[in-house]
Amino acid sequence: MNKDYLRFKEITEEHLLDFLPDVDSKSMTVYESMKYSLTAGGKRLRPALLLGACEFCNGHVSNSITYACAIEYIHTYSLIHDDLPAMDDDDLRRGIATNHKVFGEAIAILAGDGLLTSAFEAMNKDMLIYFDDPVRLKKRVRASFEIAKGAGCRGMVAGQAADIEAEGKTCSMEMLDYIHINKTADMIIAAVRAGAHLGEAEPETLDRLTDYAENLGLAFQIADDILDVTGQEEEMGKKKGVDAQKNKATYPALYGIERSRQKVSELTDEAIEILSPYYDNAEFFTTLIKDLEDRTK
Amino acid sequence: MNKDYLRFKEITEEHLLDFLPDVDSKSMTVYESMKYSLTAGGKRLRPALLLGACEFCNGHVSNSITYACAIEYIHTYSLIHDDLPAMDDDDLRRGIATNHKVFGEAIAILAGDGLLTSAFEAMNKDMLIYFDDPVRLKKRVRASFEIAKGAGCRGMVAGQAADIEAEGKTCSMEMLDYIHINKTADMIIAAVRAGAHLGEAEPETLDRLTDYAENLGLAFQIADDILDVTGQEEEMGKKKGVDAQKNKATYPALYGIERSRQKVSELTDEAIEILSPYYDNAEFFTTLIKDLEDRTK
Repeated sequence: MNKDYLRFKEITEEHLLDFLPDVDSKSMTVYESMKYSLTAGGKRLRPALLLGACEFCNGHVSNSITYACAIEYIHTYSLIHDDLPAMDDDDLRRGIATNHKVFGEAIAILAGDGLLTSAFEAMNKDMLIYFDDPVRLKKRVRASFEIAKGAGCRGMVAGQAADIEAEGKTCSMEMLDYIHINKTADMIIAAVRAGAHLGEAEPETLDRLTDYAENLGLAFQIADDILDVTGQEEEMGKKKGVDAQKNKATYPALYGIERSRQKVSELTDEAIEILSPYYDNAEFFTTLIKDLEDRTK
Repeated sequence: MNKDYLRFKEITEEHLLDFLPDVDSKSMTVYESMKYSLTAGGKRLRPALLLGACEFCNGHVSNSITYACAIEYIHTYSLIHDDLPAMDDDDLRRGIATNHKVFGEAIAILAGDGLLTSAFEAMNKDMLIYFDDPVRLKKRVRASFEIAKGAGCRGMVAGQAADIEAEGKTCSMEMLDYIHINKTADMIIAAVRAGAHLGEAEPETLDRLTDYAENLGLAFQIADDILDVTGQEEEMGKKKGVDAQKNKATYPALYGIERSRQKVSELTDEAIEILSPYYDNAEFFTTLIKDLEDRTK
């Protein structure tokens, strides 16, 4: 049990709607659509990592909530767009109907656009609050930049595009790694680096956290693909076997389940080793990846 | 002829691709898709307004190009998403095939997402350049916030959503104004305010420019709707009569062409009056709205 994870998840969920702009009655539908997907559950992995990294680097969680929520807005937008008929065409997400199934495609596209924009609006607004405190303002600019970079077309968008293009084709190991790193790991790296900047990260700590996050990101994506084959539908909140059906490029498809599990274990051991100089102080991070590894067994 | 407008348009087009992240060969398709829509022509109204407002407020255009391009990225993303089959379902934009007609829906959605994210990535990166110059850093934070607010779900996204929802229904005058203000005027206001912040805007000047931009935004949308009825297809680069066919809420549909023209004239006169304290110094702005009015005649 990772008590810190639960604490960070709770803080995130408590404040998750706080940073959406006040909308008037005429924009209620798109607002409801954004809220629907934001409150549909989820692991809150990225905000937890951001808050965890901030605290690990002696920062105050209370000053970083905006950024934690912003990164969850971006993650949620990516899921809404990813589920669209033109993309993965999924009807079910986290056990309930996907956004476009409830609100229609047009509103779902706009809800995604609205969430992505709201993330930057919220971070920008927070910068204005710390306008006359150069040290804090700079931390915020750095954090926001990490998130933008991870979400953009050298990061998550590139990964999504490569994933779409690889569908139905023979995918090389190199391409599969490219997809995983960009689609999943980059936002996980962004979360950890943004949190570290919001704290007081020393350069070496920032490097180690980045390496840890890259391992976590890859392990997380492979674990997700393993569970698509071996998992319980009820637990996952979505249909299993979807990747194979769509001829998706996945680790299990390319290497089989056993080698995929082994890869997750290797990544986990390496990640724990990377953070070993910090001993028990890094428990939040080491427990998190250990728990992930256990889920694949 | 508005020489300043042409100058701002040229500067924008010269630098328009400079602020996209360097992508590798695996992300070429989504990059090509973004580039396709960015370089497909267009009035470059929003960046010209941003640069014009910056110069009007004694700022240097050369320091504001990032923001001018960022606002054009956001405008371009909104057009790509707006043209999608689930939204306006348009095949032609500026005389050439719409993005999804060339690259498919999935890549078009991602190209829009990529452009929106790149806008904020570019502005954030620019903030990092001025990291140790608090005065310039603050101007940039303010400019970026204006753009985020104008593009978000109290601005452009709200307008798009209301526009989609109003389709095929009887639309009240109040709702029509709401759509126009949010969908079009808010980004025009954001462009002018961002530019003013990047210069040295006095509060009164900022207020007057904001009022001017609100008039321009409304006049611009009404003019666009008039031209959809009366314009030359070749000149517009798209089919005419589309609004009526889709039962879109427009000024001409609600008030007729003559009253719509009159409304554009009223807004134009008012906008010129707002900027009258600046005499000829405001020529860029006054000529711009006057030229727009002339096109509707």
